[in-house]
Amino acid sequence: MFSALIPVSPLNAVKTRLKDFLTPDERIELIKNMLLDVYEGISPICDKIYVVSKDKEILEFLKPYAVIPIMETENIKGLNDALNYAFNYIEEDNIIITPADIPLIKKENINNIVKECKENSVILCPSRGGGTNLMVLNRSSIKTRYEGFSFLKHIEECKENNINPIIFPSFYISIDINTVEDLGEILIHGGGTYTYNYLKKLNINAKPKHSSAGRFEVIRQNTE
Amino acid sequence: MFSALIPVSPLNAVKTRLKDFLTPDERIELIKNMLLDVYEGISPICDKIYVVSKDKEILEFLKPYAVIPIMETENIKGLNDALNYAFNYIEEDNIIITPADIPLIKKENINNIVKECKENSVILCPSRGGGTNLMVLNRSSIKTRYEGFSFLKHIEECKENNINPIIFPSFYISIDINTVEDLGEILIHGGGTYTYNYLKKLNINAKPKHSSAGRFEVIRQNTE
Repeated sequence: MFSALIPVSPLNAVKTRLKDFLTPDERIELIKNMLLDVYEGISPICDKIYVVSKDKEILEFLKPYAVIPIMETENIKGLNDALNYAFNYIEEDNIIITPADIPLIKKENINNIVKECKENSVILCPSRGGGTNLMVLNRSSIKTRYEGFSFLKHIEECKENNINPIIFPSFYISIDINTVEDLGEILIHGGGTYTYNYLKKLNINAKPKHSSAGRFEVIRQNTE
Repeated sequence: MFSALIPVSPLNAVKTRLKDFLTPDERIELIKNMLLDVYEGISPICDKIYVVSKDKEILEFLKPYAVIPIMETENIKGLNDALNYAFNYIEEDNIIITPADIPLIKKENINNIVKECKENSVILCPSRGGGTNLMVLNRSSIKTRYEGFSFLKHIEECKENNINPIIFPSFYISIDINTVEDLGEILIHGGGTYTYNYLKKLNINAKPKHSSAGRFEVIRQNTE
């Protein structure tokens, strides 16, 4: 079994690329719904789930769930530092690090991903755009190098430590939600997730579009 | 073993979303390189590979390869009709349909996808944007329903025929190349593909970008 660590950015600063489409409160609700999907998605294979955040509200929100909160101190800058800080509170060696904004993880057969994990294995699931959306590592194996093209950096980090990383190229896990277009993927593939249900509650729908402007037309119907 | 069927659009009309970034000739070269990657990606599991196209040049180009050309007649309109037309020329029952623009298929363990295929199984690999990028079917099982949100239409079609489709959510297969940003995914994940090598030959590189404008900054360096 594994422990999971989910870093969550302060709620007032998140998902700004959705600001013309969702109100600040709706963006916060979206984050919470995505977080619940991620929580349920990894629960079957995790002994303990830690959430590290600077945001009191998010840690409060998680109180009813079997989550161990780690409150970041104010001086921590950036994701890698936050994760390193959280490692101090985690007893277990094998850790799954997952972002809070990949609700389709619930659709993935997560057992397939971790079943090949042995001592010191590193497993990497790419995100679109060159990032890393899920990572399994032993805390003594490699350092995290998020930000930028972290997928390539993590592969490099493995090489430097003589580790052959296991790449698990999951479509579902690659979908992190940052733009209006990303919501389209949830509307296609996310049936049964909290996030899908929340978008539907807001009367958000998607139409196909094949132009230079993107793959989806994501529409919010005014019900008034 | 399987047969594969690759439909290819006329070269002069393809990849228009790349027109401000690549010349018409370069877009044609890109298509050819992607096609070779797809060909090599599926070869290990295919007895026969058919390519259906209205374009003489593409069928000429493939002559040195173990590909069976199917020349579409002029009256055929749309992808589904082209596939149905091609089915007349294919003897085998189990067919893998794959687009020509998913070079990262070469990175996928394609055996994992087809190993669960039984008589009348339907396997679906999603594309981004709600489409279907790879499909395995028995010609008597379901009709193809490409265009629009074909992934959902194919699931519906399976339901109507009492088939439980196998969804294989592959990140690599989900990446079809239509926009400049899509090229970024090849630059990150496509090492060893013809497509990657071709982009590098054109001095195309990617930088990370996290703004409303997208995930990549894809840059073409002028070498003059």
